[in-house]
Order: sequence, then C-alpha cells, then structure tokens
Amino acid sequence: MVGVGLIGGSIGMALRDRGLVDEVVGVGRDMGSLEQARARGAIDRATTDMADGVSRADVVVVCTPVGRVAEDVRRAADAAPRGALITDAGSTKRAIVEAVDKLPRAAEMFVAAHPLAGSERSGSAFARADLYEGRVCVLTPSTRTAPDRLRRAREFWSSLGTRIIEMGPAEHDEVVAYTSHLPHALAASLAATVPADWLPLAAGAFRDGTRVAGADTELWTAIFRDNRGPLMNAVGKLQDRLSSLKYALMNDDEESIRRWWNDARARRSLFESQKFPEA
Amino acid sequence: MVGVGLIGGSIGMALRDRGLVDEVVGVGRDMGSLEQARARGAIDRATTDMADGVSRADVVVVCTPVGRVAEDVRRAADAAPRGALITDAGSTKRAIVEAVDKLPRAAEMFVAAHPLAGSERSGSAFARADLYEGRVCVLTPSTRTAPDRLRRAREFWSSLGTRIIEMGPAEHDEVVAYTSHLPHALAASLAATVPADWLPLAAGAFRDGTRVAGADTELWTAIFRDNRGPLMNAVGKLQDRLSSLKYALMNDDEESIRRWWNDARARRSLFESQKFPEA
Repeated sequence: MVGVGLIGGSIGMALRDRGLVDEVVGVGRDMGSLEQARARGAIDRATTDMADGVSRADVVVVCTPVGRVAEDVRRAADAAPRGALITDAGSTKRAIVEAVDKLPRAAEMFVAAHPLAGSERSGSAFARADLYEGRVCVLTPSTRTAPDRLRRAREFWSSLGTRIIEMGPAEHDEVVAYTSHLPHALAASLAATVPADWLPLAAGAFRDGTRVAGADTELWTAIFRDNRGPLMNAVGKLQDRLSSLKYALMNDDEESIRRWWNDARARRSLFESQKFPEA
Repeated sequence: MVGVGLIGGSIGMALRDRGLVDEVVGVGRDMGSLEQARARGAIDRATTDMADGVSRADVVVVCTPVGRVAEDVRRAADAAPRGALITDAGSTKRAIVEAVDKLPRAAEMFVAAHPLAGSERSGSAFARADLYEGRVCVLTPSTRTAPDRLRRAREFWSSLGTRIIEMGPAEHDEVVAYTSHLPHALAASLAATVPADWLPLAAGAFRDGTRVAGADTELWTAIFRDNRGPLMNAVGKLQDRLSSLKYALMNDDEESIRRWWNDARARRSLFESQKFPEA
C-alpha cells in the first residue's frame, strides 16, 4: 500500500478484514501518519522506504494524489518483484496511463484502476473497511497492459467487493469529468456564491449541494488540473443548461421552465433506479 | 390548515403531537388526499369547504403552492373570524405580501412566513411532526402588518420549535434565491447534464448534488417563476464563478485553481460551523 490516507487505509482495512492477504505493508513519507494508520488497523507494518516496503509484494496499490501516481508506480516497479501486480486508485487515468506506458518494466506490471468511492474527509482516521463494498471500480487497460495482470487486477478489485467496469483511460476521464469532477466544481461554486451573511437561511438543498466542497484542496487542485480539458467541456455544458433556465425565466415561459425541470427530474429518477448501494 | 401536503401535514402533526390546539381542520380540494392526511394523524377533521373549515379558527395556515397562496389567504380572511391570525408557509414572499396588502381585511389578519424545511418528496404521506424542529422560520411583515398579529405569528411558529428571523419580503426573496432556489436550479442542471449512459459511474457527489432535483415539478415551476428576478441574478453570479474556474483551467493556473477551491471550502466550513440542527 503506497500512500495510506482515506483510500489506501480503507483498502488496507478491507484486505485485512476479509483475510485476503498475509501482510499489508504501508509505505509513506510521514512515519507519524503511517503509525496512525497502523493503530487504526489499516496496515500491519509501516515503512518510509519504498524498496523495503514492496520488495516481497504480490500486489502494490498506489494511493497517492493523482499528480504523484505515475512516479510512485515507477518507483514501485523498480523495487517490487517482476511478477507483482501494480495498480492504483487515482481519480483520473489518461495522464497516469500515458506516463506509465513509457516505462517498459512498469507498464508490464501496471493496471490502472479507479474505485468510485471517496469522501470529503481525508486521512486514514476516516478509513472504513466497507468503503468499496458494492461500489464500481473502473479498470482502464491500455494496449501495453499484460493480459494476466488485467485478470489479476479484476480479481483483486472484485475481492474487495467492487463491481468491475472496463473502458479506455481517455473515455474514463471524459465520463468522470461529468459524473464526479463537475459535481465537485458545482458544489464549490455554490458554496462560494452564497454570501456568508445569508448562510443562516441555507438549509438542506444548500447543505447537500455543497457537501463535497469540504474536500481537500490539494487533492482537488491536482484532479482538476489533470483532467482540465474534459472538465472545461463539462462545465460549458452545465453553463448552457443554466443559460436555458435564465432565458426561460427572462421570458417567464412557464412551459419551458416546467420542461426544463422535468428533464432533470427524469434523469435523477433514472439514477435513483440504478440498484447498487451507495455509501 | 389550508393545503395538507408535506408542509401542511407536518405542521398539523406537530400541532397535534405538542398538544397546542384543540382541533386541526384540514381544508383541501381533494377529499381523498385529506382522508389520507387524517389517517396519518396530520388533521382531526377534513373539509373541501373553506368557509366551513376556517369559520371558528384561531389560526389559519395556508400551505398551498406559492401561486395560490394570496388567493387562499383572501378566501380564508373572508370566512374566518376577524380576530384570527392567518399565516402561510410559501417559499417566496414578495408577490404574496404585495397581493395580500391590497386586501384590507386580509392584510390586517395576515403575517407572511417561510419555515425553512422541506423535502424532495411531496404529500402528507411524508409528513413528519419534527420537520420544523430547530429550523429557521422567516417572518416577513410589511407596513400593513398588525403588531398583535406579528406577535402571535412569532408565538405560533416558535411553538412548533422554529427559530424566528424577521426581514422584509423582497430581502427574503433575494436571500432565498441564493440559499435555496439556486441550489435547486443547480441540482437540476447537474442531473440533466450528465448523459444517461454514464450514470453507472456517478457516485456520492452526483447523488448529493442532484437530490433535490427529484422535487415536484409544479411546485418548483411556480417558485422559479415567482422569484425569477432574484434567481436570474443568483444564476448569473454562479455562472461567473464557473467561468473563473474555466479560465484558470484553460491556463492551467495552479495557484488560481487552489485559491478558487479554498474560498469555497472556507465558506462551506463556515456553514458547517453554524450550530442548528438540520434534518
């Protein structure tokens, strides 16, 4: 486990709770955080030395911020047994896969993954063994991906209780720009747009609509930068949708406002009818 | 109680549970819905005849959609004892207060109110006696409001467990355009912007960000129309905020993206630190 925050910690806890591995080794930069993760039961052993941490690993899971994943995969590939599987949990995939594909040894060992769960909270203190249970995990193999590693990545992520979906890295990034990064951008926009003095009149709609705006700044700055092209498109589409509403309001066009709301309501109801549990 | 849906039903249940009144009479247009509300314990007696329903009332609470409130206040004022207090629970206030202020008898009896709670669900089946407990109730008196009725309105809404805030009707509408109507407009925009095929990759951020898009179409069409000026301004401000993000993304301006996110995170955290319970 390289990087033991909310994500790495939750994966470690799930692996240990489910008895799937002999030992979970946590590799990180800060021994204090690693010790906290160990006290919480997320890892068995802690080290700040990558080579020491992965030298006998069957599976290496890189759970560092997206801007660091490719480099950590490279370092893990250099130090881990050649037969090991390396996977990650980054929220964007194109840049990571492109970078790793340029490194022959790492490319052969790596299968990019994005388990779709998270929280606006950071750190192993908020880790939960069931974070990924019943959630979707997207695998984004490239032409360089070794078939046996893809098979093992499917097994690994399935064993944590996730449902596997596979697609290309660029397609993944386009989809999550809409399904995840846009909702985060909107939550932050909404939070910043309501004047502070008026917050006492904000209730449930504001609370739910801004929840993820509490998430870590560095994490989201890195994700937004990494996926800025698709995110800009998604933001543009959202602005078009708002402009339609403004136009209908300007004309007090009852039928258009009704249709505008109904389209949204139907899509939301389609989402609700999807039957997999959400944390 | 004129109009016994989620809001009227919840107020009725709270009045009965707290033993605040001798009898809650439900006035509505559809006897079937009224009977359901009675079966649920929201009202003691049901009638479709306004005059019959309010003829001996101390307090009349109009809980119909915002487009009908002023007319229902007029009808209630004509039929209720002159000493009665009439109040409402509409989500917008300026148009209602302006309309009622033109009716001498109604203006003298009426105090406009907006208890800040609701749900994306409609109907008395979802009513809850504790819906308003610990929530804010905004009263928007005008120059026509009788001081004794304002005092009684404060007592009435406080007795349901709400915390009273008073402001002018136009100011109220401007504030809720940001704190409530804008979050609803955004939730609906987000729901409609994510392509249906991609919904399997939508998780918590999308779910929370679109929850209120499931709300009733007629209700929200009426609220948006009623408050279209302030809502257009709020949507414009939100679009500006999104445009700043797009600009920072276009330039891959790390420091601007970080600051953009941090501003939002700080506002969200200010909201979280407000210490009144939310349902």
